[in-house]
Amino acid sequence: MDQLPVSPLKPKTMAALEPQRGLKIATGNSGTRYRGRDDVTLVVFPAGTTVAGVFTKSRCPGAPVDWSRQVLTQGGGTARALLVNAGNANAFTGSRGVQACQVTAEAVAKAVGCRPQDVMLSSTGVIGEPLEADAIAAVATDLAAQATEDDLHAAAQAIMTTDTFPKWAVAQAGDVRVSGICKGSGMIAPDMATMLGYIFIDAPLPADWLQATLSRATERTFNSITVDSDTSTSDTVLAFATGEEGGAAVDLDAVGDAIFSVCDQLAEMLARDGEGASKLITIDVEGAESDASAKTIGLSIANSPLVKTAVAGQDANWGRVVMAVGKAGEPADRDRLSIWFGPHRVAEAGLRDPDYSEDQVSAYMTGEEISIRVVLGLGRGAARVRTCDLTHGYITINGDYRS
Amino acid sequence: MDQLPVSPLKPKTMAALEPQRGLKIATGNSGTRYRGRDDVTLVVFPAGTTVAGVFTKSRCPGAPVDWSRQVLTQGGGTARALLVNAGNANAFTGSRGVQACQVTAEAVAKAVGCRPQDVMLSSTGVIGEPLEADAIAAVATDLAAQATEDDLHAAAQAIMTTDTFPKWAVAQAGDVRVSGICKGSGMIAPDMATMLGYIFIDAPLPADWLQATLSRATERTFNSITVDSDTSTSDTVLAFATGEEGGAAVDLDAVGDAIFSVCDQLAEMLARDGEGASKLITIDVEGAESDASAKTIGLSIANSPLVKTAVAGQDANWGRVVMAVGKAGEPADRDRLSIWFGPHRVAEAGLRDPDYSEDQVSAYMTGEEISIRVVLGLGRGAARVRTCDLTHGYITINGDYRS
Repeated sequence: MDQLPVSPLKPKTMAALEPQRGLKIATGNSGTRYRGRDDVTLVVFPAGTTVAGVFTKSRCPGAPVDWSRQVLTQGGGTARALLVNAGNANAFTGSRGVQACQVTAEAVAKAVGCRPQDVMLSSTGVIGEPLEADAIAAVATDLAAQATEDDLHAAAQAIMTTDTFPKWAVAQAGDVRVSGICKGSGMIAPDMATMLGYIFIDAPLPADWLQATLSRATERTFNSITVDSDTSTSDTVLAFATGEEGGAAVDLDAVGDAIFSVCDQLAEMLARDGEGASKLITIDVEGAESDASAKTIGLSIANSPLVKTAVAGQDANWGRVVMAVGKAGEPADRDRLSIWFGPHRVAEAGLRDPDYSEDQVSAYMTGEEISIRVVLGLGRGAARVRTCDLTHGYITINGDYRS
Repeated sequence: MDQLPVSPLKPKTMAALEPQRGLKIATGNSGTRYRGRDDVTLVVFPAGTTVAGVFTKSRCPGAPVDWSRQVLTQGGGTARALLVNAGNANAFTGSRGVQACQVTAEAVAKAVGCRPQDVMLSSTGVIGEPLEADAIAAVATDLAAQATEDDLHAAAQAIMTTDTFPKWAVAQAGDVRVSGICKGSGMIAPDMATMLGYIFIDAPLPADWLQATLSRATERTFNSITVDSDTSTSDTVLAFATGEEGGAAVDLDAVGDAIFSVCDQLAEMLARDGEGASKLITIDVEGAESDASAKTIGLSIANSPLVKTAVAGQDANWGRVVMAVGKAGEPADRDRLSIWFGPHRVAEAGLRDPDYSEDQVSAYMTGEEISIRVVLGLGRGAARVRTCDLTHGYITINGDYRS
């Protein structure tokens, strides 16, 4: 497939990505799939780095997900290295896939001077192809000697698959810096996509606090976006606290906010780079019986092909929003439901709003960023979910891909 | 929107639709939305006709669904008439929608000589527009005088919205005839689609037996198809037993089989007329822990945009099938999973089948009817789910519709 054009929704400006203290990063080409670009990323962490992780809920995860989950639960919450390859997901590869994880982790461990069980692994790309582990391991060994502090931007590029732009975000909590990179373009396109995210914090943070903070942030950010409702075998978000700054004086609340901010920025970029996206859709559900109920309804709207094609067609089709609320299976009362597109209320208390101007709403729908707000009138539960529209571009990308 | 071209998947042959004894049918134009075609259907039943129904699970159902559900639960399992209008779903129309049901049911009751609570109602079409009940009621009154036994074909046409061909099916159980008609093209496109189905049996059948039989058949037929995962506010299946044939000698098992057969034929036709469909996809899941688990996994595959676009692109992309199995949330063991496309096994025991021929599978994928078979290797649960592929046609139909 030809290189895809950059998403029209790419942020107009992105914060400068400064070197992140404590990291040593290098990227290289493995020769296994891509030509003319790096596809292997090694990040080396100082001793004492704590780690937290959130993984795909797939019942058929890739071997690197199993590996990293095991490192996390059995390794005491610390890690010394992260190896990511793009182009092959090492998923549905049986015992060879497990061996490939062992081979690559051992190579990294030897090169950086740690144990294999200190190495986190991620793979993204084609499902069902054996991973050329020796080639990846050889590159990783070379990279260990070259790693420097300032290659985070190169890493953001080397982890890409069908992404049309590299994604990063930064936030500051006093002197503590939080930097994050991620990739993903469909929620999954198992041939090539998957969502991977890595957050780096240059402060010492307890592993259990980091895990709780990352899990909570992920629930409201990476797990509150959808491109096509499909879930990768390989989705992974990892956070690493490398410990340079602040010591015991670290303001955990501020760092938690910074971690949330980075996750939130990255999650929005994923929706902005959704396959074929022409519009970013932000869905706010309010007045639900609980936050969880609001999120289920929000995802039902965000995953509805009919809502997404209507937005693509610049049609404020609130009837399809009613449908998506109804099919979510959560408590909803038709006769209390109100719906807004941007500032325009189109339906109120179970009826079309008699005062809404079709012309004004139609003008609003021509924009690049569409807000849909649904007020259920039942309780205080609220959630925000982000997605993109469903266009001919999505069909072209996913219908013409592997072949 | 212009008239859509007839689906290439329309069955090459369809059984002749004979007059169904016991029915009196007439169709007419209400002047409310469509020009040059009938959009109101009245069916009148003899006294003693029993009725059963299955309705949308939407939490925001249309007013006619509430009405018919109430007739069914409070009416003692009998009905004397069915009125269907196409073009307006009478959904999200508040108290005016409830009044519209009352007005139309009263008009039918007066014209055919029964009580309003003996009249079943269905509406399909735009959501959120007030129904012009007086116009519908006036047509219904005229139709009552014209109704004859042999207008079932006209009824199959008059209930259509975005359907590209009328749908009917027949089956025989000895002398007992079962005839069915239905409409639907997206699982829903709330501007116009919705799935409606009506089954007529010319035998006397106890209402509770009919309800149990219809519910069981619907679960495996109408509720085992999907076009786009969206659920209408108005989906309705009704069965009417008009009682001419057989009396106490009716072979209930044979009639049950005939009802299932008609539901099954109609359900397949709905998938064949899925919006934008170019291929019919039949998904068989076997070896699951239970039938319910198999069905959940089958629907996860059938609803995956990535599986559906791959089939549209004639790509036997079994990695996407693995993904869809994994995301279903049901018990699955990656390393026992096998996948077939038609007669070709592409993956076995958690690995790509080393013997599969890409050329042969690619040739298979060019056909109009694609079978995907997934064997989980865990238990004896099985299910069949039918869908269609996801094409540019779907985007065009649903992205360019209302506006």
